[in-house]
Amino acid sequence: MTTIKDSVHDHIEVEGVAAALLDTPPVQRLRNVKQLGTVHLVYPSANHTRFEHSLGVYHLADRALGHLGIAGKRAERVRAAAILHDIGHCPFSHNVEGVVERHTGKRHDDVDDLLASGRVADVLAAHDIDPETIADLVAGEGELAQLVAGELDVDRMDYLVRDAHHTGVPYGTIDTGRLVRELTFIDGDLVLGEGNVQTAESLLLARALMNPTVYSHHVARISKSMLRRATEDFLAETDATASGLRRMDDHDLVVALRSHDGAGDIARRLSERDLYKRAVWAELGDVDEAVVGADHETVRDFERDIAADASVPESSVVVDVQGEPSMRESSTGVLVNGEVRRLHEQSTLVNALRLAQREQWRLGVYAPAEHVEAVGQAAERVLGLETEGALVSEVSTPGRYASLQDFE
Amino acid sequence: MTTIKDSVHDHIEVEGVAAALLDTPPVQRLRNVKQLGTVHLVYPSANHTRFEHSLGVYHLADRALGHLGIAGKRAERVRAAAILHDIGHCPFSHNVEGVVERHTGKRHDDVDDLLASGRVADVLAAHDIDPETIADLVAGEGELAQLVAGELDVDRMDYLVRDAHHTGVPYGTIDTGRLVRELTFIDGDLVLGEGNVQTAESLLLARALMNPTVYSHHVARISKSMLRRATEDFLAETDATASGLRRMDDHDLVVALRSHDGAGDIARRLSERDLYKRAVWAELGDVDEAVVGADHETVRDFERDIAADASVPESSVVVDVQGEPSMRESSTGVLVNGEVRRLHEQSTLVNALRLAQREQWRLGVYAPAEHVEAVGQAAERVLGLETEGALVSEVSTPGRYASLQDFE
Amino acid sequence: MTTIKDSVHDHIEVEGVAAALLDTPPVQRLRNVKQLGTVHLVYPSANHTRFEHSLGVYHLADRALGHLGIAGKRAERVRAAAILHDIGHCPFSHNVEGVVERHTGKRHDDVDDLLASGRVADVLAAHDIDPETIADLVAGEGELAQLVAGELDVDRMDYLVRDAHHTGVPYGTIDTGRLVRELTFIDGDLVLGEGNVQTAESLLLARALMNPTVYSHHVARISKSMLRRATEDFLAETDATASGLRRMDDHDLVVALRSHDGAGDIARRLSERDLYKRAVWAELGDVDEAVVGADHETVRDFERDIAADASVPESSVVVDVQGEPSMRESSTGVLVNGEVRRLHEQSTLVNALRLAQREQWRLGVYAPAEHVEAVGQAAERVLGLETEGALVSEVSTPGRYASLQDFE
Amino acid sequence: MTTIKDSVHDHIEVEGVAAALLDTPPVQRLRNVKQLGTVHLVYPSANHTRFEHSLGVYHLADRALGHLGIAGKRAERVRAAAILHDIGHCPFSHNVEGVVERHTGKRHDDVDDLLASGRVADVLAAHDIDPETIADLVAGEGELAQLVAGELDVDRMDYLVRDAHHTGVPYGTIDTGRLVRELTFIDGDLVLGEGNVQTAESLLLARALMNPTVYSHHVARISKSMLRRATEDFLAETDATASGLRRMDDHDLVVALRSHDGAGDIARRLSERDLYKRAVWAELGDVDEAVVGADHETVRDFERDIAADASVPESSVVVDVQGEPSMRESSTGVLVNGEVRRLHEQSTLVNALRLAQREQWRLGVYAPAEHVEAVGQAAERVLGLETEGALVSEVSTPGRYASLQDFE
Repeated sequence: MTTIKDSVHDHIEVEGVAAALLDTPPVQRLRNVKQLGTVHLVYPSANHTRFEHSLGVYHLADRALGHLGIAGKRAERVRAAAILHDIGHCPFSHNVEGVVERHTGKRHDDVDDLLASGRVADVLAAHDIDPETIADLVAGEGELAQLVAGELDVDRMDYLVRDAHHTGVPYGTIDTGRLVRELTFIDGDLVLGEGNVQTAESLLLARALMNPTVYSHHVARISKSMLRRATEDFLAETDATASGLRRMDDHDLVVALRSHDGAGDIARRLSERDLYKRAVWAELGDVDEAVVGADHETVRDFERDIAADASVPESSVVVDVQGEPSMRESSTGVLVNGEVRRLHEQSTLVNALRLAQREQWRLGVYAPAEHVEAVGQAAERVLGLETEGALVSEVSTPGRYASLQDFE
Repeated sequence: MTTIKDSVHDHIEVEGVAAALLDTPPVQRLRNVKQLGTVHLVYPSANHTRFEHSLGVYHLADRALGHLGIAGKRAERVRAAAILHDIGHCPFSHNVEGVVERHTGKRHDDVDDLLASGRVADVLAAHDIDPETIADLVAGEGELAQLVAGELDVDRMDYLVRDAHHTGVPYGTIDTGRLVRELTFIDGDLVLGEGNVQTAESLLLARALMNPTVYSHHVARISKSMLRRATEDFLAETDATASGLRRMDDHDLVVALRSHDGAGDIARRLSERDLYKRAVWAELGDVDEAVVGADHETVRDFERDIAADASVPESSVVVDVQGEPSMRESSTGVLVNGEVRRLHEQSTLVNALRLAQREQWRLGVYAPAEHVEAVGQAAERVLGLETEGALVSEVSTPGRYASLQDFE
Repeated sequence: MTTIKDSVHDHIEVEGVAAALLDTPPVQRLRNVKQLGTVHLVYPSANHTRFEHSLGVYHLADRALGHLGIAGKRAERVRAAAILHDIGHCPFSHNVEGVVERHTGKRHDDVDDLLASGRVADVLAAHDIDPETIADLVAGEGELAQLVAGELDVDRMDYLVRDAHHTGVPYGTIDTGRLVRELTFIDGDLVLGEGNVQTAESLLLARALMNPTVYSHHVARISKSMLRRATEDFLAETDATASGLRRMDDHDLVVALRSHDGAGDIARRLSERDLYKRAVWAELGDVDEAVVGADHETVRDFERDIAADASVPESSVVVDVQGEPSMRESSTGVLVNGEVRRLHEQSTLVNALRLAQREQWRLGVYAPAEHVEAVGQAAERVLGLETEGALVSEVSTPGRYASLQDFE
Repeated sequence: MTTIKDSVHDHIEVEGVAAALLDTPPVQRLRNVKQLGTVHLVYPSANHTRFEHSLGVYHLADRALGHLGIAGKRAERVRAAAILHDIGHCPFSHNVEGVVERHTGKRHDDVDDLLASGRVADVLAAHDIDPETIADLVAGEGELAQLVAGELDVDRMDYLVRDAHHTGVPYGTIDTGRLVRELTFIDGDLVLGEGNVQTAESLLLARALMNPTVYSHHVARISKSMLRRATEDFLAETDATASGLRRMDDHDLVVALRSHDGAGDIARRLSERDLYKRAVWAELGDVDEAVVGADHETVRDFERDIAADASVPESSVVVDVQGEPSMRESSTGVLVNGEVRRLHEQSTLVNALRLAQREQWRLGVYAPAEHVEAVGQAAERVLGLETEGALVSEVSTPGRYASLQDFE
């Protein structure tokens, strides 16, 4: 048995297939994939990686299995899936996942190909575990998959406390000990036991506060969009492939972008934190449905049109559209007076979270500081933004945005 | 300058009138008044006191004043009020406050008489501070009173993080540093600056989660109701007075109740954690409006009637009615695009909290384990509870309540 | 199984005999016995109790047993001993233990009589456990006793981290997870496994820093000495007995002393933090051996003689002698290259700690501020203090002592 | 003013020259330089960077200046030096510093050239600060330099708590609040005020425990030695220069080594955590003085000779010699009874630390697992190791080393 010291869960004991998997290159690669991509440009301490997160997920899964009384081969599979659940992540995690998915059709939780051969396959074979069952668990298929990829999975339990620890933002500080203890299976459904409506709510509320404060902080969104754009250009203009990109780590991608760095100079800007600014920051009600639901090609067209309209280089306009908000955890099951109720049936709070998410939605258009005015006006025309409020020049009203870490 | 080490805020520097006030008997008395009354019977580490809380409130007030640029005599008054804001608390804080209020007409924030003479008055006089201005601040009157007794006061900021630290329940872990930094006065109104809708929400959500989990945990409510009942009997049956009670500390009251201990044996039960159980635990919709709004005398009548109906001693029935839920923080002001908005206008979440509070409301009727069945049935009749669900026998369904610390 | 939330170890699961013992009056009494006696007069947050500490010791014992592979009845006995190990403590823990011991011959770890009858005896009988085996474990007799009352016991592991958590002084923040994992029995000897010289050292160093900073802070020593003196007077002047005292809790003793309060007015002084000051604070080298080794009666004679010499009331002089420093943990065993070595053989640091302890030793003589000069000079004569440095007037050189929390 | 959230010090407020410097490329580069180099291969959470550490040093310096009453241009210079003190670090911090120093003659605190031109120079000029005074402060020259580069500097205060936070090892958890408050200048000498012998000791003890547990953990030493060797080969075999290396960040160096990767395959091994093992791990007494004091060329000769003697490729032998232990903080000044005393005069503990450091000293010789036996025997002959104990084969006695994280 190996004991590993973790800054969040203290000692983590790894054994069996999990210990063997830990030593494989695809898992070790995660040491160099930042958990939160470019968020460290807002919260400088947020340099934690998918590797330590995977250990944490393994640890919570193992404890949950213990409390649930699940042992043997079924438990080993869940532990293997916990260690492996993030090996499909590309560099900077979610930041460039969309790029890879468009080219390869694969999201980060689609890991069949990564388990089929090489060291991971060898380890699974040596432990007599079928790779497909692991891929299914990672993809959220099957009853036990709920533990690692469902509404009440240990994945989000770990990332909330870990992101809180490393950013310094306390909102993610949930009670993982209680959550893990209160999990129970009712008719194949993973739910929280009696007396845990607030426990369930706390998980959703933590996300609801971490989201605007950390994950969707406007500087995180700007830098992530810039990274995505630079990566798209890199793929388009070199002979690099999306499946190659998927196996890179952060080191590889940063150096590749720096070497390639095109007209936009984006890699240099990211390295020096010389970021684009918001030319538009519009609320959901002010944006046309067609824009909200625009696909990648349409967004690229918007960028080209806005750049043309503003007479700036195409690389100087980044349009950042988030799809319609959704919140699947709201169907989390909790036992209330002996029957399973869905949180959205039971909890007024959780229903409010759905609405709050819509209120927090923003369309962003970003540009270098010197082009912000022109790009903002062009975007208003091209995207048909309806109100004056949608047009926001971050440069002309400095300091009126987030007071935190706003030294863009 | 005195530097004091606090487990929550680390070093607290006290000087001027605050340092002098700290040494007075009414403030030192707070060392022996538990912040959370009987909550330590649920969370054994929750033994923190009003004294350390008062230091914490002073500390946050002092930092807020610094960020707001308020200095001189106005600031000294706020600091004095921060140190003194809880000297009106009776033993076990809110647990027996109602008893004292009925007899004396004074709530814990009505401190005129406590400032008018004695060592506190001497210190205030020596620092040329009018006691009435301090009493006003403590009572929430005047612009600066918003800092120590308003919707955005440092009082609740301190108690949330302190209660989280000492109970071990993380839900209260708010970001006091950010809150204190973002306070600003707009036209005499203390609000949070731009970009802080989530900051404001986090304060309310922390309360919304701490409330059912800690402050209104059913074991806390049972033990608090028992303590209140024992204190009422003590006042009724001895020559002790309510104003004398108000100046006792926890040591005095516990020993007084133990010495007096009547038929109900409540003091012994509290000392040995041999608590009453729930005979009724009914939701708001199942309880008649007249019961929800019952005053003290009516509640005592209920208790007598139920006891008679169930043929048990009067001391074996405790009825615990909470008034209609309210939530005044929902009008917290936040700057949004340059204008002050009220949180309930701006935040869907906060409106949901009002509803959630109603959902969490419970009427409790408590009795010794051996009388729970009889008392429950009698209460159903006497209180006219409408549904079957309202009648709950904790004894017949053990373990189906809170899974945490439920070894009543 | 009961799950209890602890501010230090998070969730603690209690079952079997330990759960049953938790509900007995002698264990519940510990809820009202402060772990650190009067230390809260220096560190205001230090209000934690022997009850939560006992839970913590149980928790660490349970985990250690798991790692050591000890189960069944032997393990149950250790768990019972962990819960019960402090029931022999009198109010304010060590502060008045000496008083009780002189009268009853019993120290806090001599608990035979407390296990022989009553609820605790009933519970032990119901679980088929011989009370004498538990008393032996608590007294440190037998191989497994090393876990709860030895050089590497979980008792000190818990109190160091707990005292750090509640005082805010970080020096006690040891790595309990590692310590508990690395325990191993070699030939009946509880030692730390290979690679743990620093782990062992860290435990001793934590104590070495907590000692002068917390446990022997001069204000803690002064207030403890005052409490001890008041208790002695109370026993001498009333019909209270030492064995009665032993079963009191903090509430009882405080109120008893307040009611009795003699000429020295000590109970009032403690309640108002109006403490004596140091008239003498002398190093080991400056104090005669006869004084260092003086027994209780001799110390009382010193007090009388000094009072007479200084023409002050006898109650105005408190002499506080600590015996010769000792440090038994220095023989902690650690595996080094496959053989057990004693820390004092292996660790230069640990040998230095013995010397450091001698350097930190101080003789204290305390008096009300107005008598400090006279008492200091009288003490110099009566005790034959050898150098001028020994005579220290805290009043004439204010602020030159501890910079922390020195508002005596 | 910019407010930045830090996971260690919470909110850090940056303004003036410090805020302007933060935005310069040389400071932003530190975002991609790991504070602890390869230590994350032992403690997976240890991914923190020189950037966040620099912010922390700035923060503590700023607070220390406040407590010391130093303001104006003198304070601005110290703040600038705090932000800039680490810009001379090469990738992976100390790991390859020796390589750069041999080629360029520059250590990480020799930053004259980095301040003389470019954006940093522009900012300093705009704030009317002479770059040479900053370089002197960073190099430890001048009275105020003691704050950022002396025995009591805020640099080590920050890294101890930060490394503890990110590794999870609590030993570094010192009381920075107290240290910063107690700093005082006596005759130009930065010392700790009265009553702080333990405060000073705590700083040294924290280092003494963090050192073997974290900084010199054998896996950290092995991986650091491998990285150093790979970098030497890279410099020798490509047209890269040491001064170019000095301006790289971790991304650049990792990718450069991967691209170059020679016979030893070291870059791949580091990425996959397929590390060399210890063939020799010898104590100071068992190693010849000439070996202990060997310079770089001599060490390379040892490696060649051992490789030849063992008939393995030269890249399969890494000799890791640490010079004679030293401990300069032992002359830290503390006020005792009004005069400055040096800690080594005053503290028995600190003198013990010097000896302990010698006991912890180890000579390491590392090799791929399959060559460990041969290399160990060859090293014994070539280095003339005196005792049998010096020859240690990690492969033949697995698990007998550190029990923590020993899955090499």
